[in-house]
Amino acid sequence: MEVEIKELLADLQSLDQSLPDPSLHASLHKIQSRVEHLAKLAKAEPVRRSKVQDMSTEVVDSNPYSRLMALQRMGIVENYERIRDFSIAIVGVGGVGSVAAEMLTRCGIGRLLLYDYDKVELANMNRLFFRPDQVGMTKTDAAVETLSDINPDVVLESYTLNITTVEGFETFMSSLKNKSFRPSKQGSGVDLVLSCVDNYEARMAVNQACNELSQTWLESGVSEDAVSGHIQLLIPGETACFACAPPLVVASGVDERTLKREGVCAASLPTTMGVIAGLLVQNTLKFLLGFGQVSPYLGYNSLKDFFPTMQMKPNPQCSNVACLTRQEEYALAKPARDAAAKAKLEAELPSTEEGPLHDDNEWNISVVDDSEPEGLDTRSSDALPEGLTHELPTADAFQKLPTEAPVTDNDDLEDLRKQLEAINSA
Amino acid sequence: MEVEIKELLADLQSLDQSLPDPSLHASLHKIQSRVEHLAKLAKAEPVRRSKVQDMSTEVVDSNPYSRLMALQRMGIVENYERIRDFSIAIVGVGGVGSVAAEMLTRCGIGRLLLYDYDKVELANMNRLFFRPDQVGMTKTDAAVETLSDINPDVVLESYTLNITTVEGFETFMSSLKNKSFRPSKQGSGVDLVLSCVDNYEARMAVNQACNELSQTWLESGVSEDAVSGHIQLLIPGETACFACAPPLVVASGVDERTLKREGVCAASLPTTMGVIAGLLVQNTLKFLLGFGQVSPYLGYNSLKDFFPTMQMKPNPQCSNVACLTRQEEYALAKPARDAAAKAKLEAELPSTEEGPLHDDNEWNISVVDDSEPEGLDTRSSDALPEGLTHELPTADAFQKLPTEAPVTDNDDLEDLRKQLEAINSA
Repeated sequence: MEVEIKELLADLQSLDQSLPDPSLHASLHKIQSRVEHLAKLAKAEPVRRSKVQDMSTEVVDSNPYSRLMALQRMGIVENYERIRDFSIAIVGVGGVGSVAAEMLTRCGIGRLLLYDYDKVELANMNRLFFRPDQVGMTKTDAAVETLSDINPDVVLESYTLNITTVEGFETFMSSLKNKSFRPSKQGSGVDLVLSCVDNYEARMAVNQACNELSQTWLESGVSEDAVSGHIQLLIPGETACFACAPPLVVASGVDERTLKREGVCAASLPTTMGVIAGLLVQNTLKFLLGFGQVSPYLGYNSLKDFFPTMQMKPNPQCSNVACLTRQEEYALAKPARDAAAKAKLEAELPSTEEGPLHDDNEWNISVVDDSEPEGLDTRSSDALPEGLTHELPTADAFQKLPTEAPVTDNDDLEDLRKQLEAINSA
Repeated sequence: MEVEIKELLADLQSLDQSLPDPSLHASLHKIQSRVEHLAKLAKAEPVRRSKVQDMSTEVVDSNPYSRLMALQRMGIVENYERIRDFSIAIVGVGGVGSVAAEMLTRCGIGRLLLYDYDKVELANMNRLFFRPDQVGMTKTDAAVETLSDINPDVVLESYTLNITTVEGFETFMSSLKNKSFRPSKQGSGVDLVLSCVDNYEARMAVNQACNELSQTWLESGVSEDAVSGHIQLLIPGETACFACAPPLVVASGVDERTLKREGVCAASLPTTMGVIAGLLVQNTLKFLLGFGQVSPYLGYNSLKDFFPTMQMKPNPQCSNVACLTRQEEYALAKPARDAAAKAKLEAELPSTEEGPLHDDNEWNISVVDDSEPEGLDTRSSDALPEGLTHELPTADAFQKLPTEAPVTDNDDLEDLRKQLEAINSA
């Protein structure tokens, strides 16, 4: 529209120069000023809220953070405004990832990194977030458009790429390492990675990146029959990684890789995906802001409204070498953890707490102590709690299935990449 | 912008009539046609998807229902397209109600009735759905704007009113009774009422309406510390009504009526409200489409990811007269139910089912049989399951608290209305 108005103004200008009668100039100038006014109207951005410097606790209708800062007065969160320091990476901006991104944006998260390579389709309209007028846009572009309108305070970085390709994985890794948002941060440049992808290969790529970076992440998934889902916390070296045991799902599942085949279409519901996104981001907030207990694994069976939980220890025979390295580091740090836990326990006596938490565990994540014999061994299906089942055979067995390529130990990233690419091109 | 362009065209017209030189007319006509083109551009609607005649199972990117119709092939739902026959009333279009409305709209529900009297504020931006550019609009108008863009197939009716006023309650009742959408429907004109309000008085008004109409409803709530919530199924005569027992909540709660006082502000989180909306609409879908089990009561304690459940029988001493009438009707129908259940059981033998369901219970809702002695009596707090507590004293005791007005038995609607108004004006 801007171009059309510019052309119109040029025409009016040339007409002005050809007018003989001075009285007509006045009429024409009035017309010109009307068109200039139109130009302003056309340019006018839709109403947007301005950025805010600090999160105010003031209880007024115009304060977008009043109901969040109220968490402090309610005694739930000690310092809500810390949320602005945190960076979250969301891999997969589909039915779960997009809603998770919107929730974090509305909560005022500091920085969001979004990864997806897909485009918005009308077939996505049965899930929350994307709108019909965004059909054809990349999901990352559409998400940035919507999220920046909702909350201009959030720093949004979007990566339109496939993390299971060599190039995509490299960009993924370097984006996670980038610490320019908070240079003083320990470890990687993000505080948590949320996996919201819909296939095994992408989860294995997230797993590989997080094991290499010693990066804690939350995995999420929804079954292809749309009526169950889960979230799972993965702390490299401390809990099972995604390759330590076959993935746990709530319902018995069809092989995920069939879903993308022509004519086969997974079911999905905005309800199941909204619940999983809500549970995922609620646990993210608990993890970041240090309240409540972060769930190690939480399932959702929507047919029965049943929510199975469990904990998973790492597998000392895990095929992922980076996982084994993290396990060694974690074992080496055990004496220090025990001493710190003992000191903490003594300092807190008399206490009604049931047992020592890990001292370096500032987020109150309870994971079974590695010395406990009753920790669940998820590698045998007999040990699974009610309502949970393995989705696939073990990672090793799985990798033998789809490819004819010789299977090697995953002893370095290159091998993994080759296997992923063979699976993708199969 | 339309007005401005019209004025501009009028000015051009009058200039045209004053031009002396015919050669100038050509220039002016070019300008006029440019402005007419502008007018068309300004009028152009944003891209919207068109209505669809039937829900297709076709697996193409352009089919907005493909992932929902896939529920049939997955064996979850027998006939998904039935959803277009159903009408749902959502009372309260706030943090839970707006998301519930969006989920149902994306699922392709036949008709949505929305009730709210509030306006969108920036302080609502920490919950999903409303956008900053909608600040100042009524929530009903803003919701209709967004929902009709998302899915033009849904029939939307919005009621900008307060159901706790006499006038508002009357309009509420008559809108529920209206059967023009599906004249053949038994009972009221809606299939389910979802209560998504944030105060006791509004819940009591929904309760009164549903008891009078013998209308099944689902109640929802989120605690004022933002970290817990619940949903509850209420079938007049068969389960406890909202006045049968003090409201059950997950966390220990502050008196809800303090929330709206000046300077006092409840906390809220998009996560908790998204989870509750998801559980609410998931149970709505199970109820409407006849799959899975509808939960009689489901709590959500987000600090522990704990989900308490329970069942509540009606109180034979309930203060709500309409509830007592429904209880009598339900008791009178018991022999017929028992006979039907026995016939069904015999027809199904040999069967592995654990016990007879009510035969008239086409939605598979399991409610404890009224002859069972082990049914939970929720009127004594000793009987409550772990994690649940009463939010308020009994309805009668509650109503004695806030008003100085003489308390009478709720023996008719007029009395209830007077009491509600006294509370509202207090």
